[in-house]
Amino acid sequence: MRIDLNSDLGEHYGAWRMGDDETMLGIVTSANVACGFHAGDPLAIRGTLRSAAEQGVSVGAHVGYPDLVGFGRRPLNPTNAELEADVLYQIGALRSLARAEGTEVRYVKPHGALYNTIAHDERQAAAVIAAMRAEGSGLPLVCLAGTPIVAQAEAAGLTVVLEAFADRAYEPNGALVSRREPGSVLHDPAEVAERMLRLVQEGRITARDGSDVEVRAQSICVHGDSAGAVQMAVAVRDRLRGAGVELAAFAGAR
Amino acid sequence: MRIDLNSDLGEHYGAWRMGDDETMLGIVTSANVACGFHAGDPLAIRGTLRSAAEQGVSVGAHVGYPDLVGFGRRPLNPTNAELEADVLYQIGALRSLARAEGTEVRYVKPHGALYNTIAHDERQAAAVIAAMRAEGSGLPLVCLAGTPIVAQAEAAGLTVVLEAFADRAYEPNGALVSRREPGSVLHDPAEVAERMLRLVQEGRITARDGSDVEVRAQSICVHGDSAGAVQMAVAVRDRLRGAGVELAAFAGAR
Amino acid sequence: MRIDLNSDLGEHYGAWRMGDDETMLGIVTSANVACGFHAGDPLAIRGTLRSAAEQGVSVGAHVGYPDLVGFGRRPLNPTNAELEADVLYQIGALRSLARAEGTEVRYVKPHGALYNTIAHDERQAAAVIAAMRAEGSGLPLVCLAGTPIVAQAEAAGLTVVLEAFADRAYEPNGALVSRREPGSVLHDPAEVAERMLRLVQEGRITARDGSDVEVRAQSICVHGDSAGAVQMAVAVRDRLRGAGVELAAFAGAR
Amino acid sequence: MRIDLNSDLGEHYGAWRMGDDETMLGIVTSANVACGFHAGDPLAIRGTLRSAAEQGVSVGAHVGYPDLVGFGRRPLNPTNAELEADVLYQIGALRSLARAEGTEVRYVKPHGALYNTIAHDERQAAAVIAAMRAEGSGLPLVCLAGTPIVAQAEAAGLTVVLEAFADRAYEPNGALVSRREPGSVLHDPAEVAERMLRLVQEGRITARDGSDVEVRAQSICVHGDSAGAVQMAVAVRDRLRGAGVELAAFAGAR
Repeated sequence: MRIDLNSDLGEHYGAWRMGDDETMLGIVTSANVACGFHAGDPLAIRGTLRSAAEQGVSVGAHVGYPDLVGFGRRPLNPTNAELEADVLYQIGALRSLARAEGTEVRYVKPHGALYNTIAHDERQAAAVIAAMRAEGSGLPLVCLAGTPIVAQAEAAGLTVVLEAFADRAYEPNGALVSRREPGSVLHDPAEVAERMLRLVQEGRITARDGSDVEVRAQSICVHGDSAGAVQMAVAVRDRLRGAGVELAAFAGAR
Repeated sequence: MRIDLNSDLGEHYGAWRMGDDETMLGIVTSANVACGFHAGDPLAIRGTLRSAAEQGVSVGAHVGYPDLVGFGRRPLNPTNAELEADVLYQIGALRSLARAEGTEVRYVKPHGALYNTIAHDERQAAAVIAAMRAEGSGLPLVCLAGTPIVAQAEAAGLTVVLEAFADRAYEPNGALVSRREPGSVLHDPAEVAERMLRLVQEGRITARDGSDVEVRAQSICVHGDSAGAVQMAVAVRDRLRGAGVELAAFAGAR
Repeated sequence: MRIDLNSDLGEHYGAWRMGDDETMLGIVTSANVACGFHAGDPLAIRGTLRSAAEQGVSVGAHVGYPDLVGFGRRPLNPTNAELEADVLYQIGALRSLARAEGTEVRYVKPHGALYNTIAHDERQAAAVIAAMRAEGSGLPLVCLAGTPIVAQAEAAGLTVVLEAFADRAYEPNGALVSRREPGSVLHDPAEVAERMLRLVQEGRITARDGSDVEVRAQSICVHGDSAGAVQMAVAVRDRLRGAGVELAAFAGAR
Repeated sequence: MRIDLNSDLGEHYGAWRMGDDETMLGIVTSANVACGFHAGDPLAIRGTLRSAAEQGVSVGAHVGYPDLVGFGRRPLNPTNAELEADVLYQIGALRSLARAEGTEVRYVKPHGALYNTIAHDERQAAAVIAAMRAEGSGLPLVCLAGTPIVAQAEAAGLTVVLEAFADRAYEPNGALVSRREPGSVLHDPAEVAERMLRLVQEGRITARDGSDVEVRAQSICVHGDSAGAVQMAVAVRDRLRGAGVELAAFAGAR
């Protein structure tokens, strides 16, 4: 039994702080590091990469829409050519900083509105996939388990890593319950930890109607942007480890 | 007899155009391509890289201060850590786009106010040099011939490429005549071409007081941002070739 | 008989030029001046405002989405609160620069993707309308004739100015032919001028199926971003004047 | 006996938070509100303005260099024309948002590197002064007591408001001790409060060599970007009030 824990990091910007990267890098096995388009200035990114390298955490490019003020959370509608170039630019920028810190970019995980959009929007998904093929080093793409992009990316020859969200409620069909609906986000660390253990052991999560839904996942996304979030990440890690589950990056690092 | 001709390209930004990259890529042997901080959006940069690859022109990272509205021409005073991370970020971003177009970043040339500042400012020069050492792939750094950064970069183990400016007047001590002074910029293509031929053949340029000044240069910078500039670049190229000088990139490409 | 001619101006950004404001300000009666979000740095905006003041051209705030690299042409999905604040910010910024040049902001015209979105999207339209009400000085809002926002804005108490597009083909129902379809943009200055004269004299435009469509408009939008565009604007102006139509701003100036 | 307490607010940017505006608006009498160039997105600015209006705190435009990633703290070298337009733009943007919240911009206080630069740099000071004259509504300019800009601004006809810094050590000549020197920033709330009471009552501060330095000030700047800073602001307020000093905005509000 083995799983990866990933979290969104490197999201400071200049004088502004976001999240507690140092603490989270002591918990997770993969760090989705912002690349400057939705968050992350080069110096802050580099600091997160240094810590990730020191703590043996695997690093991925958390590519986003070019929308700092919206933190990459607002749907945008770039052309395919724009989006493809934006993704390439961000991966390369992060790689250069990563190598300067003795580590490597080992995967790509789109951020925020881009992540949500390409899960279902075939056109924008195609642009991201094209960028990863043009990039040429065979990086895996982290996708939401159960969404159309998974087959699209695999058909294009990409390695896909499926992820589940620790603190989100699931629909019976495997989709996440929309954030607009009550109960979409779970707040009890013990409950969340138990759900994630079952996910790892049985490949199942209890949907919000009480039914079981099958979820294949190689990685679990945990948040780290508040004290409560860190506490939940710790609860998930400890519950998994306590049950004998090995926590390890799906790609690279120790 | 052999020399490189370089020019600043990839400077479009979104809907805004700057210069005629297609034409210039038919003239020069090295293209200093903007990296998004002073100019160049990812899509526009990629277009220039594609053309450079097709025309066999060597590509360098034209790294600049993060100041789009000032086009990187305004002195800025970043910390060493900020500047070092900014340079790494830009080189990596360009490299990723270059590889997607089947070419490579083969050198670094700082842009505008950064170029002018580090020629003489030891602190900021040290940050750029540190970035290039951290970058780790041994790229050469293009510097203004005759400025203090040359020795500083060489002492740090970098390969330095010296350049001269085709359309600029020189002081007897080898410095460029300040743009604030009359006569600092030359406008006669035939005169400029003749000066550059003498530079290549004799290693000398006539200074503004009529004396000879020794200028070692492996590359000549020509501008391409106006019809007159293109005409001058053509004049230089044709005069050099006509005299049997080989035009070739100092690094990579054909 | 009287009509206004408006054009999008003030769209330079730093070292980048867009359009020929000086020439266009000699042709049009109203200038939609960019406010810095999709185009226009403060200094460039101020230069356009100075010229508009000198030439007696009425000035409007050409408010857009915060997307420089996309020139405000990409649909964005801000919250109502974000959009309302963005519009207020832009109007105020332009007003301050306008007053420094002895003129005034006399109307608001949304730009690009924002203009197209609010014509039909009631939610985003409501945010723009709320901004104009919060702004408090009773500025009129320029809207595309025949679109739902017209009634929505009037119901909210705004003064609406209807505009037609000189170089665009119309559907029989009064909508613009989508730019994705062939024939959507007209290129013959004489034909365009004749269509605009008929619009002014009869309130009708020939739709693309040959039928007549009624279009009420108090202003005609002409483009000025190329030599051909300027020529077309001149043709429209001269044809209207030649037929005795008075060209005058719908609000302010001479 | 009467004095104003001012603090830098409105410095959130998108998802990033900075400082505790709500708490500080319950302590100070004047709020220097960021205008979007060094910090502050329109929506966040508007929220701070709303709170300021509700709590009867006077609002000033905290204009800065266009450098989000550097938080306006890095020296920049704009032309006079650029800087003048940038200042006008920011004042207008803030005014529009302020009026929408039922309040007014009542003064201008430059931020960070701009504040420090114009205190001594006559050229950039002239550009800011020119902007305020062009702005035309007679807003006062907040300047560091004892610096050359004070006479320059008064000679140009501006109303100048002098301020002191609560937590900074002073040189015997009235200058602030440079932040690079040990002891430049004071950390003991009781000591700071006592110094400020003496400033108000006697017009004197103890310099770092133990001598007395005369400081004329109509306003005291207190910071609010950390829990400790808020505690210090409270200490200053309470000490002054306890000694019978009236705290009141130098301009507008209650």
